[in-house]
Amino acid sequence: MANSKYEYVKAFEQPDLLLPNTWIVVRIDGRGFHKFSNKYSFEKPNDRRALDLMNAAAKAVMTELPDIVIAYGISDEYSFVFHKSCALFERRSSKLVTTIVSTFTAYYVHLWASFFPETPLSAPLPSFDGRAVQYPSVQNLRDYMSWRQVDCHINNLYNTTFWALIQIGGLDAKSAEKELAGSLAADKNEILFSKFKINYNNEPEIYKKGSVVFRDIAQSKTQEENDRKRRAKARITVQHVDIIKDEFWERRPWLLSNKPGKIPKEP
Amino acid sequence: MANSKYEYVKAFEQPDLLLPNTWIVVRIDGRGFHKFSNKYSFEKPNDRRALDLMNAAAKAVMTELPDIVIAYGISDEYSFVFHKSCALFERRSSKLVTTIVSTFTAYYVHLWASFFPETPLSAPLPSFDGRAVQYPSVQNLRDYMSWRQVDCHINNLYNTTFWALIQIGGLDAKSAEKELAGSLAADKNEILFSKFKINYNNEPEIYKKGSVVFRDIAQSKTQEENDRKRRAKARITVQHVDIIKDEFWERRPWLLSNKPGKIPKEP
Amino acid sequence: MANSKYEYVKAFEQPDLLLPNTWIVVRIDGRGFHKFSNKYSFEKPNDRRALDLMNAAAKAVMTELPDIVIAYGISDEYSFVFHKSCALFERRSSKLVTTIVSTFTAYYVHLWASFFPETPLSAPLPSFDGRAVQYPSVQNLRDYMSWRQVDCHINNLYNTTFWALIQIGGLDAKSAEKELAGSLAADKNEILFSKFKINYNNEPEIYKKGSVVFRDIAQSKTQEENDRKRRAKARITVQHVDIIKDEFWERRPWLLSNKPGKIPKEP
Amino acid sequence: MANSKYEYVKAFEQPDLLLPNTWIVVRIDGRGFHKFSNKYSFEKPNDRRALDLMNAAAKAVMTELPDIVIAYGISDEYSFVFHKSCALFERRSSKLVTTIVSTFTAYYVHLWASFFPETPLSAPLPSFDGRAVQYPSVQNLRDYMSWRQVDCHINNLYNTTFWALIQIGGLDAKSAEKELAGSLAADKNEILFSKFKINYNNEPEIYKKGSVVFRDIAQSKTQEENDRKRRAKARITVQHVDIIKDEFWERRPWLLSNKPGKIPKEP
Repeated sequence: MANSKYEYVKAFEQPDLLLPNTWIVVRIDGRGFHKFSNKYSFEKPNDRRALDLMNAAAKAVMTELPDIVIAYGISDEYSFVFHKSCALFERRSSKLVTTIVSTFTAYYVHLWASFFPETPLSAPLPSFDGRAVQYPSVQNLRDYMSWRQVDCHINNLYNTTFWALIQIGGLDAKSAEKELAGSLAADKNEILFSKFKINYNNEPEIYKKGSVVFRDIAQSKTQEENDRKRRAKARITVQHVDIIKDEFWERRPWLLSNKPGKIPKEP
Repeated sequence: MANSKYEYVKAFEQPDLLLPNTWIVVRIDGRGFHKFSNKYSFEKPNDRRALDLMNAAAKAVMTELPDIVIAYGISDEYSFVFHKSCALFERRSSKLVTTIVSTFTAYYVHLWASFFPETPLSAPLPSFDGRAVQYPSVQNLRDYMSWRQVDCHINNLYNTTFWALIQIGGLDAKSAEKELAGSLAADKNEILFSKFKINYNNEPEIYKKGSVVFRDIAQSKTQEENDRKRRAKARITVQHVDIIKDEFWERRPWLLSNKPGKIPKEP
Repeated sequence: MANSKYEYVKAFEQPDLLLPNTWIVVRIDGRGFHKFSNKYSFEKPNDRRALDLMNAAAKAVMTELPDIVIAYGISDEYSFVFHKSCALFERRSSKLVTTIVSTFTAYYVHLWASFFPETPLSAPLPSFDGRAVQYPSVQNLRDYMSWRQVDCHINNLYNTTFWALIQIGGLDAKSAEKELAGSLAADKNEILFSKFKINYNNEPEIYKKGSVVFRDIAQSKTQEENDRKRRAKARITVQHVDIIKDEFWERRPWLLSNKPGKIPKEP
Repeated sequence: MANSKYEYVKAFEQPDLLLPNTWIVVRIDGRGFHKFSNKYSFEKPNDRRALDLMNAAAKAVMTELPDIVIAYGISDEYSFVFHKSCALFERRSSKLVTTIVSTFTAYYVHLWASFFPETPLSAPLPSFDGRAVQYPSVQNLRDYMSWRQVDCHINNLYNTTFWALIQIGGLDAKSAEKELAGSLAADKNEILFSKFKINYNNEPEIYKKGSVVFRDIAQSKTQEENDRKRRAKARITVQHVDIIKDEFWERRPWLLSNKPGKIPKEP
């Protein structure tokens, strides 16, 4: 039974190579996580265990894929950044995206019991979808990262106020929503402080800033190691810091240069 | 902190809609499963537990995604078929592929303990990559399915003989490979029978034919239910049968027509 | 001066192969032809010379590209159909589209003087843009063709009535537009007949039906010639006939089968 | 006759937007110009009239499409560059490529008689194909331009020597080819000089450097005009100069900045 008769079907596979010299961002999102978070009684507005599980899965992804230079997570989404010089899987979009989605999902499910020991998973299981986006310049990439972190801030300020109105203020969801309709950031800060004695600035950084995952390779010394090996071994750290201002990037030049100790250069 | 300044980065997301009226096949493959199967001491040439786990994950995917009409699995790969009329996720390629890959991975990891109770998973965890392929006609789709099933046969006959030479015949891998170099199907059948009294035809169907997963909706009666609901509730069956000949398809016209009881019509 | 240093830029060229086994339609449109038709005082509602020039250019395109099986033109647009089995230029989209657009433009400009001997072309010259669309089934392709021919009918009935109101009825453009706002086909027929004694059915077929260009190979005999050569030599005819009903296609089975004398088969 | 029944076919048109913030190069090539140049007895190795016609057509394209910032031509090919900020046609690839190909072809055919007054065009007419390529950085774009100019040099040195061997040296094509097989640039310079007293450096710049087409807007003054208008009115110049070294670009900062008088900034 020769297979040559059917092999023509391979010709229907179409190439999906991403453009060289562009920053590749793979963003994944939890599927139906609103429902999922209710099923497992996630704490509102933020469930620390759920965020820690997301971060643990993201660290595992970065450990298995040393080509990722930085990742950023908020709520049930995570963005993974491949350097513009990345040649992994010949830059095939499907391959890059599905590998990240699958690896992330595997660790999320596997590590669930460590973070939610009392509520075992049951069908339907958590899952994630994802897509790749290409950014030609460092400015575009940094604006993408800033976009996600500003979104984190806006959502968290809203959610913190919304749930304070419900959990402390005793409002129902509809009334809380109405109270906040059209409010500015200053208004929400004011509600939090005057009504609930909550100073938003004192909220945990992980909720206000999201989670930045990257390799801390300042201390690496042996210049003989090749970069990929070095990256694989470098300590991966999770921090909750500002990535909008220049300081974060200037103090960690290896993130954009993709070379330990090197300063990024454009164009 | 308004976000409008950064929102332009959304314009870099490029559409990836699949062509309407084409059959969509999403094929997923285990990443590095050769190494993985060694790590967990999979039985050779086939590990029944591993195949049953693949099938259980595939069934779960089909349960969560009623738009899938049929799936076919061999070894560490699985192909999922969406009907040409499928409108799920507006036919966005990334969304379709990542949802399947993620859901499959979630169940594979979650169900692992049921099939391998004595060997718990540890990092690096199993993961899968995937891609979508479009087939314009029923003939193309059936040829794709035939291609996979012929591949199953060719690989299984080779592996069965190869491992018999090693496990029963006492050869090492290199000698077994050499013995089989250039051999035809008839030669392998002959080696199996004359040397090891193995009649390949009597090997388990699951190894020879792979696994076909579909909804058995012949018995459905209530015509008022809408199709999607009906599909969701229909019993999903895993069978190890020939899908190359017409008979399989002619006896189950709802698979290609996407309507219970309806006969497919082309063009 | 070696070129190897710069050759990496070739890697930025991305493949654009169209899916196999789909009908390829390349539709081209005149750029800014409203203005263009005013500049050269095209007769309204239809300028026979302009349509004849379009048809002459389309015939030339089909002569130079024997892989085109049929073309259909109305006003300043033309659709060229490649058979689903077409392998020209490896089915590269850019190559197919630009070759048609360029060849069409070349003949349009070159033949202009034959159709408009008294009004020589001057800058800005006429030009056309184009795109390729893939249709998986014969039904989709025929619906595309029907779509264009129904459009021809709708536009021509409107334009015929609109210009009768202006040219015979003495209305200005605004009043004519107002008169026709919300009118049905029957209303326009009635206006034409009662006000201007024009029976729309007696209007020239070329205006009502558009132009269908194809090879008339019913008479071909020598079975030894290969198909491409045969196609290249076959007489190309321009007709103004109905392509919505089955009759046109059933009487010319070679158009869909892509083989002289063969009946098309699907799937 | 309503058209709604068929309008679904529009859904088969797939978007082809180019990535924002990338330099777009549209390169067009003469189709079958080897044969074409023989048919019209082009002079070898270079036909000045043919190059002047190419340049005239390129100038016309740039006049009609002010979004093009620079173009570069050699032999029967031309590359047109849109600035990375270009938003013309929403950056739709087909639209950009076909508009350039069609406009170029129109002028090539229309202007033919001015450059070849004694040899009127006849079918098959000259035509061009084209494709778009995206370059993320100024460096990539400049390397593309350098690649084409180095190619011009390599081809012209070869052709000059090859045709000298034939036209002056009396060799036939095969012998000339053999003579040059494996030769380096220095060898060809030596052959030209020692055998034919030709100093390659003294060859016309248009043959050695190709043709660079751009707007000379150093003199523009009225700052109130908007850029597009200004570009449309600026004098388009054709020069035969080095575009590999920095000097060309540094002296004309408006080419990369896309703003008269502005210096380009990256990233």
